[in-house]
Amino acid sequence: MCELLGMSANVPTDITFSFTGLMQRGGRTGPHADGWGIGFYENKGLRLFREPEASANSRVAELVQHFPIKSTAVIGHIRQANVGSINLSNTHPFVRELWGRNWCFAHNGQLHDFAVRKGRFTPIGDTDSETAFCDTLNRISQQFDDEPPIDQLLPLLVGACDDYRKLGVYNCLLSNGDWLFSYCSTKLAHITRRAPFGPATLKDADVTVDFTAETTPNDIVTVIATEPLTGNEQWHLYQPGEWKLWQHGEVIASA
Amino acid sequence: MCELLGMSANVPTDITFSFTGLMQRGGRTGPHADGWGIGFYENKGLRLFREPEASANSRVAELVQHFPIKSTAVIGHIRQANVGSINLSNTHPFVRELWGRNWCFAHNGQLHDFAVRKGRFTPIGDTDSETAFCDTLNRISQQFDDEPPIDQLLPLLVGACDDYRKLGVYNCLLSNGDWLFSYCSTKLAHITRRAPFGPATLKDADVTVDFTAETTPNDIVTVIATEPLTGNEQWHLYQPGEWKLWQHGEVIASA
Repeated sequence: MCELLGMSANVPTDITFSFTGLMQRGGRTGPHADGWGIGFYENKGLRLFREPEASANSRVAELVQHFPIKSTAVIGHIRQANVGSINLSNTHPFVRELWGRNWCFAHNGQLHDFAVRKGRFTPIGDTDSETAFCDTLNRISQQFDDEPPIDQLLPLLVGACDDYRKLGVYNCLLSNGDWLFSYCSTKLAHITRRAPFGPATLKDADVTVDFTAETTPNDIVTVIATEPLTGNEQWHLYQPGEWKLWQHGEVIASA
Repeated sequence: MCELLGMSANVPTDITFSFTGLMQRGGRTGPHADGWGIGFYENKGLRLFREPEASANSRVAELVQHFPIKSTAVIGHIRQANVGSINLSNTHPFVRELWGRNWCFAHNGQLHDFAVRKGRFTPIGDTDSETAFCDTLNRISQQFDDEPPIDQLLPLLVGACDDYRKLGVYNCLLSNGDWLFSYCSTKLAHITRRAPFGPATLKDADVTVDFTAETTPNDIVTVIATEPLTGNEQWHLYQPGEWKLWQHGEVIASA
C-alpha cells in the first residue's frame, strides 16, 4: 500500500510541515520505503521531485523538507510497492500534458486484472496506478475535444473511479493545477485550516508549527492525507465512495 | 540565448563534472540566469529537475552537482529568456509521453512567427521552444500510429529541424531515452571520451577530474554542449545544419 498527500490553498503556501511528517513514514515510522514523490503547481508549471528510494533517507527529500516551495495545489505520495517493481517509472505522482496543462495523479491501493483502453496516453511503467491514470485521461480525451468546465468533467471522473474501485482499492488524488479531485475507496482524511490558526504537532516527528505566525487571516489551506498527520487537530475522515473537489482550499463539489 | 548540455553513454554514468561547469554559466561565468533544468533517464523513467532561477545560486542545482545520478542519456539546459517570461512552465527541458516513453527536449536559439500545428500535444508555457517540441511530436504522432524504428523516424526529425531553422536559430537536443538526437543550426560541440582516459579541467570552475579513476576501459561517454566545457581537451564543433544521432555514447547516424 501507499500513502497520499494533497494540498489545496487560496494563496501560495508551502507544505514543508506536512511533507516532513509524510517523509518519516517512508522507512522510519512507516513501511512505505519503495519510493516517494511530490509535485508542486506553480501556475501551469509543475515542480516535480521523485525517487524510487526511501524518503526517510533521501537527500533530495531532506532538501524539499527545508525548501519552502509555495503552491496552491500539491500532490505527494510515498510508495510501498505491490504491483510493479521498484524503479523510477513506477514512482508516483504521474504526470501527463492534456490541453496545455499538467495533469498530476497519485494512487493508494491496488487494482486487479486492470487493462488500459487504447488511446493516446500509454503507461511508461507497469503499475496498476499509472494504467488507471492513463485510462482516465483516455476517457477524458475521447469524450471531450477541448477542456470542458469542471462540472461537465466531474461525472466522467467519478464514474471512472467508481469503475476502478470495483477492481480493488482506489484512493486517489488528481489535479490539473486549477482544481484538486480526491476520491476515497477505503481511507482518506482532510483538514482545512483557516483563521483563527493555532499550533499543530506532527505525529511522526518531533515538530510543532504555529500557523498563526505563518499565515494571514484570509488564508485557507486544506491538507489531504491517507492518515491524519497531526495529533492535536481534528481531521475529517472521508467515507468509502466519497469524493471531494477542492479549489482554493475549499470544497466546490462533493458526494 | 541559452546553453545546452547532453550526454550519451554506454554505461550509466554521472554527469556531475560537466553539470558543474554548465551551472556556473547560469549567473556566474555566463548570463543564462533565467532558469535551469536537467533530465536523467533511468531506463524508461526520467528524473527531472527544473527551476526558473539562476543555477549558480540554486540549492537544488548545488545538490544535483554533488549527487552522482547515473544515466545513459541526459539533457540539460540553462536559460536566458528571449521568448516567453521567466517561469516554471517556460523552463527547459520539456517532457511529453508518447508511446509509453518519456520524450525530453531542450532548445537553444529563437524562432520567429512560429505557430504550432494543432494536434494532441499542446504547449503549457509560451516559449517558441516548447511550441517547436510539440509541433515535432504532433508531426510524429500524425505520421506514425506506433513507435517506428529510429531510421524511419529520422527523416521526419531532420525535416522538422530544417523547417524550424528557416525561422531563426534552432540548436536542439531530443531523446526518448533510447537515443539522443542533436541538431546544430549555429553552435554545438561534442567530445567523446573513451580509454585511455585522462584528466579534464573545467573552463568555468576550478575543478579537475581524472576520468581514469572514474571509468572502466570499456566506457564510452559523449558530452554535447553549446560551448566546450573543458579547456584541455579537443572538442569537435558541429557544422551549421549538421545533425548527429547518439546511442550508447557513439554516433549511429549523422549528416
